[in-house]
Amino acid sequence: MSETTHREAEKHRESTEVSLQQLGNLIYEQIQNREFPWVMMQSRSTDNIIYDPDLRQYILGSRTIRRHSRNIRHIRPFTQLIWTAWFAKELVSLRKTSTLREVYYSARGQQDIEFSGQQESDNIITDLEVALNKPREDFGIFPEERSAIFGDLTIEYTVPGYEGRRMNLTDHPDGVMVGPALTSSEFVETSADKVLVIEKGAMFTRLVEEKAHDRFNAILVHTAGQSPRSTRNIIQRLNRNNGLPIYIFTDGDPWGVHIAMVIISGSANAAHLRGLATPEAKWIGVWASDILDYKLPTENLTENDLKRLKELKSDPRYKDEIWQREIDIFLKIEKKAELEAFSRYGLTYIVDEYLPAKLESI
Amino acid sequence: MSETTHREAEKHRESTEVSLQQLGNLIYEQIQNREFPWVMMQSRSTDNIIYDPDLRQYILGSRTIRRHSRNIRHIRPFTQLIWTAWFAKELVSLRKTSTLREVYYSARGQQDIEFSGQQESDNIITDLEVALNKPREDFGIFPEERSAIFGDLTIEYTVPGYEGRRMNLTDHPDGVMVGPALTSSEFVETSADKVLVIEKGAMFTRLVEEKAHDRFNAILVHTAGQSPRSTRNIIQRLNRNNGLPIYIFTDGDPWGVHIAMVIISGSANAAHLRGLATPEAKWIGVWASDILDYKLPTENLTENDLKRLKELKSDPRYKDEIWQREIDIFLKIEKKAELEAFSRYGLTYIVDEYLPAKLESI
Repeated sequence: MSETTHREAEKHRESTEVSLQQLGNLIYEQIQNREFPWVMMQSRSTDNIIYDPDLRQYILGSRTIRRHSRNIRHIRPFTQLIWTAWFAKELVSLRKTSTLREVYYSARGQQDIEFSGQQESDNIITDLEVALNKPREDFGIFPEERSAIFGDLTIEYTVPGYEGRRMNLTDHPDGVMVGPALTSSEFVETSADKVLVIEKGAMFTRLVEEKAHDRFNAILVHTAGQSPRSTRNIIQRLNRNNGLPIYIFTDGDPWGVHIAMVIISGSANAAHLRGLATPEAKWIGVWASDILDYKLPTENLTENDLKRLKELKSDPRYKDEIWQREIDIFLKIEKKAELEAFSRYGLTYIVDEYLPAKLESI
Repeated sequence: MSETTHREAEKHRESTEVSLQQLGNLIYEQIQNREFPWVMMQSRSTDNIIYDPDLRQYILGSRTIRRHSRNIRHIRPFTQLIWTAWFAKELVSLRKTSTLREVYYSARGQQDIEFSGQQESDNIITDLEVALNKPREDFGIFPEERSAIFGDLTIEYTVPGYEGRRMNLTDHPDGVMVGPALTSSEFVETSADKVLVIEKGAMFTRLVEEKAHDRFNAILVHTAGQSPRSTRNIIQRLNRNNGLPIYIFTDGDPWGVHIAMVIISGSANAAHLRGLATPEAKWIGVWASDILDYKLPTENLTENDLKRLKELKSDPRYKDEIWQREIDIFLKIEKKAELEAFSRYGLTYIVDEYLPAKLESI
């Protein structure tokens, strides 16, 4: 088992390395053929980002662009792309990881590579994802992580120095951090039959302390706000590969609603990627109707909240009945409530009453 | 060993429970004696917060206040304080933890306890700390955690369900989350001879990946910005009980400087508490002089940065020569640099060159 896992991780790494080499070879050949080098990729402009109702996520359309060093306006992003591909190749060969910010600063050490800010460098990394049809995590480029996971799941590491070592995610009762090592690990074994995804650290800690993983036979995932892509990928793997249903539990406000939706249907920014959306996942609360049914303590919706709700209402991802219904209730009551609002009935109400009732009803 | 650890944790818990009971008994007695009940505590007003050069931290002066239910303006905070003490007593008796936010919402479930917002409730929790001379962590009240730790340190848990179980903090290569379980654990054994404290997650991940814990024989602590109190307490224990020197490594800007200072000398807000400041800890960078010596990529200091530097310059905690010197250089060059800026010399420069040189020079 351990040997297989290690071999598979190594095969995956090698295929990324080969893709990067092929990109490099292509450029070399073009130059040797006395052509101005160029790279072809799908267009990421908004008119080429399409919502696919079958896949239930945003995808890129068929329009492609050619980034061509003959075009003077393309020279800058073309050079940046090739440098970024070189840097990614270094990371992959050396089995290292890096962060988006480090990539930006690494470029600043090069005399001839210029990025006006991190946003430009992040954008070129996305171009590289599109050009190679691979997520940046495959190149070893990660954002700063804040997520955590807890429950009966045994993982096997593939990172250098830990190959073949296993850990059970109940081993540390504060929760286990989601970083490059966890993201690249194999999920070996679990007795859980569902996943509870929670937006906030305080509620995650509450559920761990109330042994929600035992009581609901669940793996608990803490997204720390809008989930990083690696966490969305973990959720998708638990759903698709381990067959576990996913239940998402957020604040009852437009931002919480959208945290759930991005897990379910992905974001327009990641339209070029697969493996992030989990269309089968269910948003179980805090619904606008829960605010009324449970008489939760509330705050008033702000102007900004109301504007955001109206945007969501016309977003194609929100066309299903439950979303439209809950958005309408939010707009009508003009109130919002946080996960912690259930504490008014005692700290354990949420696990003793609310969650069992919600899971039953779904 | 395990039995002793468990007994000590239990004794600590019981002494907190007794303090809370004594507070309750005092109120009962006053009422039975037909007095209006009152509580005596040290004043937390700014004129009673004094910098103690011997302890090298802020402390409360000798002025006390009496919160008296005979005074109509005191009835509200007095009632809030007694409710909060009751809530803390419940947490301690039931061996539960809670967050500042949950305490606020729990109060909202009570008909007669009113907090106008979380700030008022946080403030009353601080009053309870002062009244009982104990940190809120003893009452099981924690902030939302974001910190992490990594390195050869074996801990033994004292939280329910994990009593006597041990974990080595190298077990999860993404770093181990600092939460109630880690904070309340015993530090059993370490082969490390120093602690490196890092402000940012990306640099923490870099150091783990470059095996800085092995190469520098260090425990790595990630504060995630301004360190939560529990993390400062862990740093202090590693210094005082395990005898490990502490080296703090932050962004080269006034905010990074102050993250280091709060670890070293504490904050005015926590003047009523001991066990948080580590006067022996050293700030090793990024210094303003490093920006020049290492020709780091920089950003310009903003108006706000400059204003903050001037405040720090006249703060009594900053009177020592190194702080005054570095603040003066910042003010002169009007530049700042982030930890990641060293990536311009390659991802491993920081562990291969900068950190060894810095540790040598100190």
